[in-house]
Amino acid sequence: MTAALHPLTNRRIVLAVRPSGVPQPEHFRRDDQPLGEPGEGEFLVRNLYLSVDPAQRGWVNASANYADPVPLGAVMRALAVGIVERSRDPRMSVGQHVYGWFGWQDYCVATEKLVIARVDPALGPLSAAVGIFGITGVTAYLALTEIGRPQGGETVLVSTAAGAVGSVVGQIARRLGCQVAGLTGADDKVEQCVAEFGYHAALNYRRGLERERLQALCPRGIDVFFDNTSGAIADAVWPHMNMRGRIIQCGTAAIAAWDPPPQAPRREREVLTKRLRHEGFIIFDHLARFPQVIAQLCAWNREGTIRYREDIEEGLDRAPAALAEIYRGENRGKKLIRL
Amino acid sequence: MTAALHPLTNRRIVLAVRPSGVPQPEHFRRDDQPLGEPGEGEFLVRNLYLSVDPAQRGWVNASANYADPVPLGAVMRALAVGIVERSRDPRMSVGQHVYGWFGWQDYCVATEKLVIARVDPALGPLSAAVGIFGITGVTAYLALTEIGRPQGGETVLVSTAAGAVGSVVGQIARRLGCQVAGLTGADDKVEQCVAEFGYHAALNYRRGLERERLQALCPRGIDVFFDNTSGAIADAVWPHMNMRGRIIQCGTAAIAAWDPPPQAPRREREVLTKRLRHEGFIIFDHLARFPQVIAQLCAWNREGTIRYREDIEEGLDRAPAALAEIYRGENRGKKLIRL
Repeated sequence: MTAALHPLTNRRIVLAVRPSGVPQPEHFRRDDQPLGEPGEGEFLVRNLYLSVDPAQRGWVNASANYADPVPLGAVMRALAVGIVERSRDPRMSVGQHVYGWFGWQDYCVATEKLVIARVDPALGPLSAAVGIFGITGVTAYLALTEIGRPQGGETVLVSTAAGAVGSVVGQIARRLGCQVAGLTGADDKVEQCVAEFGYHAALNYRRGLERERLQALCPRGIDVFFDNTSGAIADAVWPHMNMRGRIIQCGTAAIAAWDPPPQAPRREREVLTKRLRHEGFIIFDHLARFPQVIAQLCAWNREGTIRYREDIEEGLDRAPAALAEIYRGENRGKKLIRL
Repeated sequence: MTAALHPLTNRRIVLAVRPSGVPQPEHFRRDDQPLGEPGEGEFLVRNLYLSVDPAQRGWVNASANYADPVPLGAVMRALAVGIVERSRDPRMSVGQHVYGWFGWQDYCVATEKLVIARVDPALGPLSAAVGIFGITGVTAYLALTEIGRPQGGETVLVSTAAGAVGSVVGQIARRLGCQVAGLTGADDKVEQCVAEFGYHAALNYRRGLERERLQALCPRGIDVFFDNTSGAIADAVWPHMNMRGRIIQCGTAAIAAWDPPPQAPRREREVLTKRLRHEGFIIFDHLARFPQVIAQLCAWNREGTIRYREDIEEGLDRAPAALAEIYRGENRGKKLIRL
């Protein structure tokens, strides 16, 4: 191992302009820098797959969120899977695959703090470590089971149903014996929900969310609403909640800007009279449970219960456009960048 | 015991017109009827105290609620404490005090189904059986502890703080080691909250709910919001919720009409990023826990931890006006009618 094995330059995508809504390619720029050497206690990760996640919008917006915003000029915060190429941390071996906060760049000089999980390549393709066997799958599992607590025979409605998280929620809910319904934004995704992702039924919300359509989709009402969208979809769904229903707030993809907060129908009376429970879920509260949940998801994947679909693009420079596309619903599966 | 001991007439207050918002005296009328005799399995209760509760508005409105609306011409649904004067139910003795659904009338021909609890007059004044030792106190205890789950040192905010339920919530939260703050609608009630009901601090929401005033009231933010009001008070309070805060929806007294639903700031983003939990509470789901909770409240009352204040009016005919008054915040303690 000599320095000559490394390129002199680390290609990086940094935040150039802070967006107020959905980040677009013009909010980012390339800012290549000489690659640094790991210091004592550090190690060098070469990224293999970069994750493109709806949550990234929240990480660049200025408004209060669950994490500090990415500073202007800094590498775009992103999850990635990579391989350790140099190490000055005795606990981290060269050749180890890792999943963590390595950013939209070729290389990351990292410490243990940035690592979410060590990755065993025998469990599945490395790309799955940033998807079904990463925060995507673990979010689906924990938010559904810890907040939703669905019982066999209950109706679970997922929005959006064919997305990276939603497609896993549908399959887990089906596995748990629920009646599973989905809302998605394209006719081909409706078919995909039923054919691939375990949904009993799905509908295209762009064709209307009238009361009759939702009643036909969920004839016994809704016990668990897994909401990744908020907005008009949520407003149409809430009146169909059953007594003691649970609403899992896992994302708010349908609302572009929260400052000032948009208006919505006031929900206190429904919450009271139906004894609803509405609760937010952020995966980063639950990192300690990763190994257990990933083992469960791997087992279900091996038995054929849980499938996943990936939408993989080539090359670092595609990342900003790929992020904008997922807010337009153009991805077909978990969006990844292969380096 | 002969029939001559009973008056021939049962004075009754019935629903005359269905109100769309707060019921007023003109929505009710007297409709006296000959008193019936209890049949096999029935017993005759003579009412001693009638309860006047904010929830009664929901019981007369036509819109969907947790109970069927009171039919036009029927006795107004109300809780009461009374004494059994005749019995053809072998399980119910003459002279037994009972708490239950006996309505705004002198007498009720009842069955066991209408009884919520048998009352032991040795535990306290009979009037307390429709207040602190009835649904009022049990609601305060169970909603706070089951949904709010306050930990010692956390901040609990109560709205409204001096009301029948709120005044008990404040004292229980103080007993549990919390920092307790209250919102109430009159300056004398602010003083009462601090002097009588265990609040560390309180403020009059009619003098403004600006951010600075709420920050001064709850300098460490709010962990548990016990909300009996909804409306502008809730909208001002929510932004002060701490991470993983709990919002207990126990009433919606500040909103007069829900059809069509009024608008409010959309809350999905706050629920998500702060991992808030918003949940509704209806006491009638929890009747099996009455004896245990009342025993706890009685013990705290004997040790001096929990006090209560009653606002007692004389005579059946005062009931409709008393109900309208509690929505205007004119009561000073739990509103009761003594017969």
